[in-house]
Amino acid sequence: MSKKIMILPGDGIGPEIVEQAVAVLKTADEKFGLNLEFSQGLIGGASIDAHGEPLTDAELAKAGECDAVLLGAVGGPKWDTLDRAIRPEKGLLKIRSGLGLYANLRPAILYPQLAGASSLKPEVVSGLDILIVRELTGGIYFGEPRGIQTLENGEKQGFNTYVYKESEIERIARTAFEAAQKRGGKLCSVDKANVLEVTVLWREVLDRLAPEYPDVELSHMYVDNAAMQLVRAPKQFDVMVTGNMFGDILSDAAAMLTGSIGMLPSASMNETGFGLYEPCHGSAPDIAGQGIANPLATILSAAMMLRYSLDMGQAADAIEAAVSKVLDQGLRTADIYTEGSKKVSTAEMGAAVVAAF
Amino acid sequence: MSKKIMILPGDGIGPEIVEQAVAVLKTADEKFGLNLEFSQGLIGGASIDAHGEPLTDAELAKAGECDAVLLGAVGGPKWDTLDRAIRPEKGLLKIRSGLGLYANLRPAILYPQLAGASSLKPEVVSGLDILIVRELTGGIYFGEPRGIQTLENGEKQGFNTYVYKESEIERIARTAFEAAQKRGGKLCSVDKANVLEVTVLWREVLDRLAPEYPDVELSHMYVDNAAMQLVRAPKQFDVMVTGNMFGDILSDAAAMLTGSIGMLPSASMNETGFGLYEPCHGSAPDIAGQGIANPLATILSAAMMLRYSLDMGQAADAIEAAVSKVLDQGLRTADIYTEGSKKVSTAEMGAAVVAAF
Ligand SMILES: CC(C)[C@H](C(=O)O)[C@@H](O)C(=O)O
Ligand SMILES: CC(C)[C@H](C(=O)O)[C@@H](O)C(=O)O
Repeated sequence: MSKKIMILPGDGIGPEIVEQAVAVLKTADEKFGLNLEFSQGLIGGASIDAHGEPLTDAELAKAGECDAVLLGAVGGPKWDTLDRAIRPEKGLLKIRSGLGLYANLRPAILYPQLAGASSLKPEVVSGLDILIVRELTGGIYFGEPRGIQTLENGEKQGFNTYVYKESEIERIARTAFEAAQKRGGKLCSVDKANVLEVTVLWREVLDRLAPEYPDVELSHMYVDNAAMQLVRAPKQFDVMVTGNMFGDILSDAAAMLTGSIGMLPSASMNETGFGLYEPCHGSAPDIAGQGIANPLATILSAAMMLRYSLDMGQAADAIEAAVSKVLDQGLRTADIYTEGSKKVSTAEMGAAVVAAF
Repeated sequence: MSKKIMILPGDGIGPEIVEQAVAVLKTADEKFGLNLEFSQGLIGGASIDAHGEPLTDAELAKAGECDAVLLGAVGGPKWDTLDRAIRPEKGLLKIRSGLGLYANLRPAILYPQLAGASSLKPEVVSGLDILIVRELTGGIYFGEPRGIQTLENGEKQGFNTYVYKESEIERIARTAFEAAQKRGGKLCSVDKANVLEVTVLWREVLDRLAPEYPDVELSHMYVDNAAMQLVRAPKQFDVMVTGNMFGDILSDAAAMLTGSIGMLPSASMNETGFGLYEPCHGSAPDIAGQGIANPLATILSAAMMLRYSLDMGQAADAIEAAVSKVLDQGLRTADIYTEGSKKVSTAEMGAAVVAAF
């Protein structure tokens, strides 16, 4: 039986990088007999241009019928002046929420070949390997009520609601505990329980579940301290788990510790293992269409997809090994280029990964 | 006429470091004839122990009658198991809110003498000088409704409200614009306007005020990107302005870029220039009572107090020069110690600053 993969290239550099990832997937398919079947859809600005909205219900339904989704990136200045309700980002929020993709896994890994790219001292980041588990369909991103209202005195007031119920916290906590079991056995839960009641509940649920995972050492950290510790001594962390908003901030900070955000994949999954896979970086409109974007984060996202949603771990390993090989060969796109290495285009990088299989 | 300063030593290392700062203030008083008058009060755990609450109304009223407040730090494991309503942190939130101290100024400065202490590469942080302006009496810290409730199905739900009205945004924005005018003329406003309506309003207000400050170059950045840019290239920033929660996170990350959070002061002010001054770091219960804490952040907070609330800029300059001198002399408390420098105690460091006047 074939496995259906929906490709959502999106905007900016999205189409260029996704093209390379699909080529790599097709090579893996041939080599390992994966029986992959591809379809393509629109999201973000591309969908706004075609349909007037960032993700149509039809496209969402089609995505839900596939086994996994591979996404490029969304957004760009072309759509920045549109009404907020139909911005490209809303397509991303709609697919996350619509498909119940509550578990966002964001690894921050320093590739030894790229150690020099970090803005941190080598001894602080060498060997860095953190997994950030971010809740993706709740919290302040989706909480109601929300909006901007006019007060009696005529001035405007903006408001959002940061809300979590126990069941939402529990399922993401279990994802994180299980991830920690498969990794270094350490889980740091990040909250602001000294100020925010919603995160008091967060902490309570984590503490309640902890005895079920005796092989995992659970700790708690306030979000301000976590931001600080990521800068000071990031290697103290194994798995971190937090809500949607804090996860957005901390995962970007953690990704940047590696200096090579163009290398970092991510997965967003639901209870059944269905997932959406995308690079951690954005649509980089400033370099779109120039053929210089780094396709490796998307290629590594494709590998994550094979491993987590399609149970094709061997093919995933092969892709990751091929990526490591091209790095060993000294091939670098502009974002990770350093003197002495060989600068290559998006297409050349993709072709090199295919060739390294 | 004398200027009344209220001293709130607080908990942990608070009393030790405040003692040194008061000694420095007394020296400045003698030298410059400042006519300072000191009183002392309780906040945090110290107040809980004495009065069963982290800040009494009487103490708050007394603080409000002074010209400025110098605070050490609050909190510690001793009070961690108490009911959340009477934790030490609540004293801090109460004094901020009760005295209307909406403007929190947090400089992140790399002292050239301590360049090596940063976890970032020297070229990334040398000369770093950022001012973070954080809104301190609104946003999700104080928004209502808030709490933990039980849903119909029996599960608990936690919730907080992130809320700002135009007037709250406007006054902190003006603080930031004015600070930028006196510094490098660049202001970066941090929000999450692609997701949160409350920060859409934030961005609108900043844009509306910008024409009044033609000498300030205003930019906007999403909070996730700001966290990333602080790690990647912090020197791109001059002044950053943001809400209470994002400011909590970003100011700690920025402070840690310098590697010497024991050096960083902060100011929290109201409309009249009245202010509370405290080190950026916490109460460090693990080293309390050992006489090894770094008093310099508190001493520099005292200098900020003289400059911003008491209009005694000359004395403030003298304190800052004295601090720079002791660093030049190679004196270091344990937190900033590196080989080849001279390790000193809290009291020795304070005495050295007094002597360097
Ligand atoms: C584009 C934006 C809505 C999104 C988010 O905030 O979740 C992005 O920053 C991310 O982290 O995937
Ligand atoms: C202690 C805590 C309530 C406080 C805050 O979150 O504001 C602290 O982290 C700070 O930044 O001053």
